[in-house]
Amino acid sequence: MALRYFLTFSYRGTHYCGWQMQPNGIAVQQVLTDALRTVTRYPALQVVGAGRTDAGVHATKMVAHFDVEKPIDEAEKFVARLNGVLPPDIAVSGLRQVADDAHARFDATARRYEYHIIAEKNPFKTDLAWRLPVTLDYDAMNRAAKVLLGEHDFTSFSKVHTDVKTMICTISEAHWDKRSDEWIFTIEANRFLRNMVRAIVGTLVEVGKGNYSVDDFKKIIEARNRCAAGMSVPACGLFLTEVKYEG
Amino acid sequence: MALRYFLTFSYRGTHYCGWQMQPNGIAVQQVLTDALRTVTRYPALQVVGAGRTDAGVHATKMVAHFDVEKPIDEAEKFVARLNGVLPPDIAVSGLRQVADDAHARFDATARRYEYHIIAEKNPFKTDLAWRLPVTLDYDAMNRAAKVLLGEHDFTSFSKVHTDVKTMICTISEAHWDKRSDEWIFTIEANRFLRNMVRAIVGTLVEVGKGNYSVDDFKKIIEARNRCAAGMSVPACGLFLTEVKYEG
Repeated sequence: MALRYFLTFSYRGTHYCGWQMQPNGIAVQQVLTDALRTVTRYPALQVVGAGRTDAGVHATKMVAHFDVEKPIDEAEKFVARLNGVLPPDIAVSGLRQVADDAHARFDATARRYEYHIIAEKNPFKTDLAWRLPVTLDYDAMNRAAKVLLGEHDFTSFSKVHTDVKTMICTISEAHWDKRSDEWIFTIEANRFLRNMVRAIVGTLVEVGKGNYSVDDFKKIIEARNRCAAGMSVPACGLFLTEVKYEG
Repeated sequence: MALRYFLTFSYRGTHYCGWQMQPNGIAVQQVLTDALRTVTRYPALQVVGAGRTDAGVHATKMVAHFDVEKPIDEAEKFVARLNGVLPPDIAVSGLRQVADDAHARFDATARRYEYHIIAEKNPFKTDLAWRLPVTLDYDAMNRAAKVLLGEHDFTSFSKVHTDVKTMICTISEAHWDKRSDEWIFTIEANRFLRNMVRAIVGTLVEVGKGNYSVDDFKKIIEARNRCAAGMSVPACGLFLTEVKYEG
């Protein structure tokens, strides 16, 4: 009889090939799995993440589940031990027992991302924001972002070869805000397609530069064609900031 | 006839042996001097900093002066070129011409430092805060910090072997504040002795742990003896945040 736990954690993605295990490079999932196997002493322990992040993408709040045979008595001590085993760029913040059939990925009702842009060089934000030393029209970018709200087919902002059944996502939030020296794009949806946030931001930046109008942006979504949209922006500016569950 | 300029810049001190050139290790001063020599094409150019920072200490706003023979016409372009030559962990933010006898170090009327403490592991603040996973009494630490205000002999918080003529400093500000997941100690004075901020913070932390009372802290200052004070806290939490000049 297995007992299931949800783990909440953050990571700086700079030195990883992404969340998911890959033949080349070190994955966050691998490092977390190794640390959990060490601390729990279950050599076969498996970690299931709420979703994937690409190489270089960060997470301030990611969720994953794993199973153990005996209950974990002292959650706080367990988290401290796990943080001691993990490298400085991965930090566990919480642990809670869930129903045996709860699933970090399938039960997630919403995911939230941020994309950070800075204009000036900042030694404390190397690899934590995309530096774009131009003036963008953030008012126009916010008007275009409003077009994203609701249910749409996001084929125009997805990787071309992907195995998902539907391209339809429901966006509940999408806006740009200034925070100290950064402009931050926040987007929340029930689900995201691969590369979707970075392709959306790349296209919104073209709106900000005056290359596309808000109406052009609307037509790009309606085109359902990846070639219609702008470039993907670099991974270093992207943060997964929340995974939401019912109740 | 030399023309003098003040340069404003920031750096992440993690990979440097400090501001000042040393026989071993790379100094911020060296890297900045090399970059300025490249951009100005004056191979003998010298950079004079407003003060020293130790190995691993950061600066969000540091000032230095240098001389050139011909005026720098376009400050913005010059700064952009300099930032292109400098590594990602040093960033120039401003350049202004000053009087020929203005001096980055001697003319500074005040310096301001911050010391950052975090309780929880944070992958985005590795080497940018001191992680101290205990609960401190910040109210008591703020009461003790008030004792620092005004003119005092700070021998108790200075390196033992030092060549300065006087240990007297005038503190105009000293307080702890919470900002997101960090507790930040801000201190401003006309001058600082070597290692002074880190020794003060180390002693205030002892107050926060309940090992010293506010009255003990007062007696430590009055003792004028380095052995009376607490340990020096690690360099990674310390930031030089401002250098002030008249007018």
